[in-house]
Amino acid sequence: MHFTMENGSFALCAIFLELALCWAFAMFVDYTGESIGIVVENDPDRVRGTHPRHHLSSIYYYMFQDVHLTMVVGFGFLGTFLKRYGYSSAVPNLLIAAITLQWATLCQGFFQMQRGKIHVSITNLLHADFATLTTFISFGAVLELTTPIQLIVMVICEVFIFAANEYISLDILKISDVGVSMLVHVFGAYFGLMVSCVLRNNRPEKESVCITPPTPDLFSVMGTIFLWLFWPTLNASLAQGDAQHRAVINTYYSLAASAVVTLAIGLSSFVDKKQQFFTVHIQNSALAGGVAIGTAADMMIHPFGAIIVGSIAGLVSILGMVYLTPGINRKFGIRDPCGIHNLHGLSGLIAAIVGAIAAALATEKNYNYSLYRQFPARTAMGKTLDYWDIQYHVENVQPGLGRSALGQGAYQIAALGTTLAFAVVGGLVTGLILQLPFFNQAGRNAFTDDEP
Amino acid sequence: MHFTMENGSFALCAIFLELALCWAFAMFVDYTGESIGIVVENDPDRVRGTHPRHHLSSIYYYMFQDVHLTMVVGFGFLGTFLKRYGYSSAVPNLLIAAITLQWATLCQGFFQMQRGKIHVSITNLLHADFATLTTFISFGAVLELTTPIQLIVMVICEVFIFAANEYISLDILKISDVGVSMLVHVFGAYFGLMVSCVLRNNRPEKESVCITPPTPDLFSVMGTIFLWLFWPTLNASLAQGDAQHRAVINTYYSLAASAVVTLAIGLSSFVDKKQQFFTVHIQNSALAGGVAIGTAADMMIHPFGAIIVGSIAGLVSILGMVYLTPGINRKFGIRDPCGIHNLHGLSGLIAAIVGAIAAALATEKNYNYSLYRQFPARTAMGKTLDYWDIQYHVENVQPGLGRSALGQGAYQIAALGTTLAFAVVGGLVTGLILQLPFFNQAGRNAFTDDEP
Amino acid sequence: MHFTMENGSFALCAIFLELALCWAFAMFVDYTGESIGIVVENDPDRVRGTHPRHHLSSIYYYMFQDVHLTMVVGFGFLGTFLKRYGYSSAVPNLLIAAITLQWATLCQGFFQMQRGKIHVSITNLLHADFATLTTFISFGAVLELTTPIQLIVMVICEVFIFAANEYISLDILKISDVGVSMLVHVFGAYFGLMVSCVLRNNRPEKESVCITPPTPDLFSVMGTIFLWLFWPTLNASLAQGDAQHRAVINTYYSLAASAVVTLAIGLSSFVDKKQQFFTVHIQNSALAGGVAIGTAADMMIHPFGAIIVGSIAGLVSILGMVYLTPGINRKFGIRDPCGIHNLHGLSGLIAAIVGAIAAALATEKNYNYSLYRQFPARTAMGKTLDYWDIQYHVENVQPGLGRSALGQGAYQIAALGTTLAFAVVGGLVTGLILQLPFFNQAGRNAFTDDEP
Repeated sequence: MHFTMENGSFALCAIFLELALCWAFAMFVDYTGESIGIVVENDPDRVRGTHPRHHLSSIYYYMFQDVHLTMVVGFGFLGTFLKRYGYSSAVPNLLIAAITLQWATLCQGFFQMQRGKIHVSITNLLHADFATLTTFISFGAVLELTTPIQLIVMVICEVFIFAANEYISLDILKISDVGVSMLVHVFGAYFGLMVSCVLRNNRPEKESVCITPPTPDLFSVMGTIFLWLFWPTLNASLAQGDAQHRAVINTYYSLAASAVVTLAIGLSSFVDKKQQFFTVHIQNSALAGGVAIGTAADMMIHPFGAIIVGSIAGLVSILGMVYLTPGINRKFGIRDPCGIHNLHGLSGLIAAIVGAIAAALATEKNYNYSLYRQFPARTAMGKTLDYWDIQYHVENVQPGLGRSALGQGAYQIAALGTTLAFAVVGGLVTGLILQLPFFNQAGRNAFTDDEP
Repeated sequence: MHFTMENGSFALCAIFLELALCWAFAMFVDYTGESIGIVVENDPDRVRGTHPRHHLSSIYYYMFQDVHLTMVVGFGFLGTFLKRYGYSSAVPNLLIAAITLQWATLCQGFFQMQRGKIHVSITNLLHADFATLTTFISFGAVLELTTPIQLIVMVICEVFIFAANEYISLDILKISDVGVSMLVHVFGAYFGLMVSCVLRNNRPEKESVCITPPTPDLFSVMGTIFLWLFWPTLNASLAQGDAQHRAVINTYYSLAASAVVTLAIGLSSFVDKKQQFFTVHIQNSALAGGVAIGTAADMMIHPFGAIIVGSIAGLVSILGMVYLTPGINRKFGIRDPCGIHNLHGLSGLIAAIVGAIAAALATEKNYNYSLYRQFPARTAMGKTLDYWDIQYHVENVQPGLGRSALGQGAYQIAALGTTLAFAVVGGLVTGLILQLPFFNQAGRNAFTDDEP
Repeated sequence: MHFTMENGSFALCAIFLELALCWAFAMFVDYTGESIGIVVENDPDRVRGTHPRHHLSSIYYYMFQDVHLTMVVGFGFLGTFLKRYGYSSAVPNLLIAAITLQWATLCQGFFQMQRGKIHVSITNLLHADFATLTTFISFGAVLELTTPIQLIVMVICEVFIFAANEYISLDILKISDVGVSMLVHVFGAYFGLMVSCVLRNNRPEKESVCITPPTPDLFSVMGTIFLWLFWPTLNASLAQGDAQHRAVINTYYSLAASAVVTLAIGLSSFVDKKQQFFTVHIQNSALAGGVAIGTAADMMIHPFGAIIVGSIAGLVSILGMVYLTPGINRKFGIRDPCGIHNLHGLSGLIAAIVGAIAAALATEKNYNYSLYRQFPARTAMGKTLDYWDIQYHVENVQPGLGRSALGQGAYQIAALGTTLAFAVVGGLVTGLILQLPFFNQAGRNAFTDDEP
């Protein structure tokens, strides 16, 4: 492994960052109710530790463990498919993931602060994992272009912008995106591609790095299969009750359909011609169904709807790989060696559109009163007769905005717009920051050379 | 990877199949109660999403995730031990698993249809996973003999026959087979061997394919260890309450005993003589205890009973490998390169016999009223005094058949008989179908050549 | 694989052991309440199988599955980093793990016997897994020095001494060690090092085995990442309620901090100089934070406390590797090729000290009444006014010893002392037993040669 850092500046930078994070945690972060043994007066369970809600969040815990595993192992594995980055990317990725997890706790907590304190529970760790996943998706586009310090700077910018967009989408626009297809996949893909575009077009010499096409190996296949298996958990981890069941079932069938479509087309058409390059991309296209069902995973789209979405996503992902990627490369000079645009970008766009349509078709007839847990903004406004009716049937319901089905659909599309805006503008700005002389030193490509 | 399909017929076939599956899902499949937000009148939890039963099936969910992972990763890994099929089998296996999961939902649902609709919950996904596991076991016997299209045809036949046999055993004969040792392992092994026998004896040229003996590698060891670790979950995933605890404990000790016996004998006897061929089979024999305890896993056989069963299974698996496999090969021309007969077939037979004995010895004294959840057929018939007594003590109990302990044991053996009959006859018929000129085209061995 | 056992004595030994274990299980081991369907009179849930407590232990079950997986896969993986032991160690390790799991059930049960019976539930399996983990840690120090039979003898001695120390620490000294950093990591590390020291100093010829420095590979990186991800579960698996949440959160941040510190220092300082040897150790140092937070994981040390502990542990682990290990090697002739002293020994000492400090600072103000579940010995003695007050607020509380905060801290340190004493004396005695002519036969190094 040749991870050359001439002057130890990288170590200093990371250690300084860790000290800063530690200070911020000491200032702002503390346990929240579920992890403190508060005695609630008149609580039948007396000590909070035995309170039923703990049960609920224990369930979050198992979800968390699966998501945590998927995030880093799955995407770490996937990252290895570019042979050049194989071993040498895994260890620095772990370092950057460790920074991201802490930084994401602060950024996401910043938008949810109560009385100047960020209260962390296992749910926060779950959300921090999703932030880390976002940066991993972006890595796919920039890994060959950045020094380690640039990567850390990028991660710090990206996570903050990600958290801001997440806050706007979920808390202000009040959209539903259970599988985070918009918030994570669309954002991560376009952010990464924009940074890559800036970095590439500003390189002093117009060198064309010749990337060895990835050779398919057992590790990368195992990575794909692993993600294929855990995607139902990924999409269901933020859902609750009956919505969680739907999220598992829909994702399961969508992934099955996209695997059949992409592998059948892929194996027949390309492998034959010994276009080894494509085989790894085809593998990954099998996952397109998981991304494309993300936003609508817990909605009432029925198993056959999930199969249709998965099939379309698989087809689009393959077509994008063959026709779109070369075009983008020629026009904008954006290279996408990991195919993140086809897997995360395009499939995320499909997810957003499917989600908007499903939201616009959601009625109380289909969902019954769970409608108001699915789309909280559709709950009637407080102090209305409708609200009292809902409150009688649903536990812990909060007054909403009385939004209509079409209104919810429109807001879903609006959230796609803001997400794209944040990703593109944020990516551009981050790319320019990375061009600053301070960050843009020697050590370029330090990550990439695995062979001596 | 050389997966040659000259005319794209394979892709057409798979896509057509996916369309058909999509149509069938649109016609017949929908969510079931647990994944719909139904308002139940007078339900204290009001919205079904917060109903206690959801909790129960959330627990099914974690089971499902583990089983899902085990099924495909575990057996995918295991499949890699035949080096020749290594990489090139993993991707097509994923394709075929994706088809099987959807097709199994339809086949198994067909026997449980209510008013023309198949209602899917996470439990259905779990059962579909077991159907996929059955086909993976059969693959071990036929992988070198079939074209990809033949494999798909085989899977379609096998899953339907499997679902029919499952229905007869569980719903008509009302047997207990919590670890599916009969329904999955015995069925999958003998079905695969019969198909292999037909295909091999009908080959135009009597070529003797020279299979490179599998070389033990870290991947195959990891696969074995992974399965060894997850087998308690596999055997416990369909059990409930106290039976689930017994299933975990019994499987844990049975696996420990079979690992000690097989590895001790194996490492001392064979490796010494540099019979590398055997080392991988010995590894797999360590799993025999998990199969052999399957049927009786949740019965009151006590930890030492589990250790005895595991030890015997390990011994039988090793002896079968040394003495039985060569004999079968000579007599019937059945080759068994993956050793599925020793691991799944013989151990499954042991499981069926142990299960029948344990069932014949089950008394209300040992099991108390949980006896009637373990063996529903032993519940007294409706409108009898005994039934009222049971109903008073056990929640949600249904009237049974008033079967005796010996009667239950006899039915367990009967189910073994029908399973063998279905496997052998079904395998023969499927083998003959695969011989039809339409499926038996060029492309033979297309799966198998990994080296150029 | 060259696992040569000239006379089959190893097989005979293992089989005989299995028979003895089987006899002991038949005599002493049976299911406990949770896995028996007892009818409890006046129990509102009637059959025990539906009793709420089952739910609780179902949660233990998922913990168990994760811990079980981590234990054997994780440490199996980790074991592979010494390339020489790679493949050939995995299979015998499985054999020895299978023996250990059964033997640990007996040893740990021996100290908890009720009316001459050991009652096993899933919690027992979890504890047996921790005993197995202890032996795996010790393996790191002795693997190159022992024959297979010696390894089995060592495991039998070690597990019994481990169980005795566990009983004294938890049941007599009543200390809190949720992440078993003292009981498992400190014990396993120093026990293994003592055995290694005895074996090495008594070798007839003073040969200096030249160990190939481990080459970093994808397998060992995956092992590290896997453990890094599952450590929160490992530390939380024995905790309950709000303590479990704290254990997850603290471990998560501690691991993140230690990964940043060790990888930043490590990548900058050593890899540069092509000291390949260190890279694997640096990888493992990333896990130091998980060990070092172990004892205090479920205490109120706040997220920033966890970050500080993780950072210090990472730093100490790296410094120990550079300065301490060579010194120990020169002075005592103890070689530590796997670096277990830096990862498990030193970090475990930090954990014990942090745990003692946190325990000495614990007040009812911070913990509220959960204090008495965290430190049962601090509960007031029975028949006092304070006890009635606690009993009113906490379910199922037992009278304690009325210990003070400082007293609890002192007992934590005392437990560290007894653990070190048991480990050092036990390791010496075990080392001498292994020197007996009966065990110290030919076959030395039988485990180690992977190449022909």
